[in-house]
Amino acid sequence: MSEPAVPYEPTERTVPTRSRERASYERELVHSILDEGYVCHLGFVRDGAPVVLPTLYGRIGERIYLHGSTGSRPLRMAGEQDPGLPVCVTVTHVDGLVLARSAFHHSLNYRSVVIHGTAHQVTDPEERSAALDALVDGVVPGRSADIRPANAKELAATAVLRLDLDEVSAKLRTGPSNDEPEDLALPHWAGVVPLTRGHGTPLPADDLDPAVTLPDYLKAL
Amino acid sequence: MSEPAVPYEPTERTVPTRSRERASYERELVHSILDEGYVCHLGFVRDGAPVVLPTLYGRIGERIYLHGSTGSRPLRMAGEQDPGLPVCVTVTHVDGLVLARSAFHHSLNYRSVVIHGTAHQVTDPEERSAALDALVDGVVPGRSADIRPANAKELAATAVLRLDLDEVSAKLRTGPSNDEPEDLALPHWAGVVPLTRGHGTPLPADDLDPAVTLPDYLKAL
Repeated sequence: MSEPAVPYEPTERTVPTRSRERASYERELVHSILDEGYVCHLGFVRDGAPVVLPTLYGRIGERIYLHGSTGSRPLRMAGEQDPGLPVCVTVTHVDGLVLARSAFHHSLNYRSVVIHGTAHQVTDPEERSAALDALVDGVVPGRSADIRPANAKELAATAVLRLDLDEVSAKLRTGPSNDEPEDLALPHWAGVVPLTRGHGTPLPADDLDPAVTLPDYLKAL
Repeated sequence: MSEPAVPYEPTERTVPTRSRERASYERELVHSILDEGYVCHLGFVRDGAPVVLPTLYGRIGERIYLHGSTGSRPLRMAGEQDPGLPVCVTVTHVDGLVLARSAFHHSLNYRSVVIHGTAHQVTDPEERSAALDALVDGVVPGRSADIRPANAKELAATAVLRLDLDEVSAKLRTGPSNDEPEDLALPHWAGVVPLTRGHGTPLPADDLDPAVTLPDYLKAL
C-alpha cells in the first residue's frame, strides 16, 4: 500500500482549541507513533454515553485494525450498525516528566495520535487474515510466522474492525520546562525525568517443550 | 477521607459481556491501579461522536480529578453543561505479552480501571488546591511541597474537574498462556514477556542554579 507524503487534512475536530503548535498532521510522524505501540483506547458511544476501552490495534498502510470476540460490545455494535460504528481511537506514549519551578508549568513530554472515524467489520477472509497477522506482529515483530494460525472455529469467534486513517492528528510535547523568567532563581529543581519502557526476560511456559528455544525475534526485543 | 471496604456496586455497564472472571469491583484493587498511573484516557461525546483524549489525573479518596486550560473543550463543556459532562475515564497498565502456541490465544497481561460518571467543575478554592496538589504528587510523590504554587492568574486559567468513583470496575489478566491441549507439542515458543517501566536519569534544566541539587523525592523514583 503506498503511503503518500501529503499530510492528513486537518478538520474542525482534529485542530485543537489550544497548544496548536503541538499538533501535527504528518503521515510519517503519525505512522511512527502508531507503530511504536499496540494498545489503543477505543472510544464509542453506547446509549448516548461515552465508553473507553483499552484494546490491541495493528496498522497496515492507511488503516488500523482492531479485533475482539464477536460477542464483545463494540464489535457487535459495529456489525449491527450500518454504516459502521463511529469511534475515536487514541494512542499515547508518555516520554518524560517535565518538572518546572512552578506548579502551573509542570507537564509531560508525550506523543499521541487521535483517529476519528467509523469502524467497519472486515468480512473479506484475506483482509481478516492480514489484519490478524498485523495485530500479532505489532506486538512482537516476526511472531505471526511462528504460531499456529487461527482455525475455522477460532476465526468464526473473532471479529475484525477496520478504521481508515483519514481524520487523524498527532500531538506531541518535547523538550525542557517552560518556566516564567521570574521563577528561574527559585530553589526548586527543574528539568526532565525521562521515562523508560522495555521488555524483561521472557518466562517460558511451564509446559514448554525444553527443545523449543527462545526464537531470535524474541531475543531482539 | 475514609475508604470503605465494600466493593463498588456492579452496574449493567460495568459488567463485561465476556471474560467476566477478569472483572473486579474491589476498592483496594481499583485504587492501587489508579495510584500506579497518572495518565488516563478521557472519553466524552461531542456533537454525538466519541472523543478520547489522554490527560493527567489524580486521586483523593473516592474521587479523581482532572485539570486543563479553561479554554480546552472538555473542561469548557463540563462548565457549560448542567449537570456536568458525562465521561468515561480509563486507566490501563500493560504488564506482559502473553505468547501462546496459537494466534488465537495470544493475549496481554494488563490491569485497567474504567470509570463511568459525570464530571463536574470544581469551584471551591480548597478543593481545587488539594486537587492540583494531588495531580502533581500523582506524578512525583512529594513534588507539590517543593514548587511555587499557582498564583491567582494561573488558577484563573485552570479548570479542575471532579469525577466520583461510583460506577467503577477493574479488569485484569495475569498468568501464563492458555493453550489448547492439542497445541502443547507444537514447536512454537510459549510464555510471557514481562514489560518494564521506569524512570531514567533526571536531566536538569540548562538554566538550573547549580546550587540546587537533586531532591530526595526524585532520587527515590
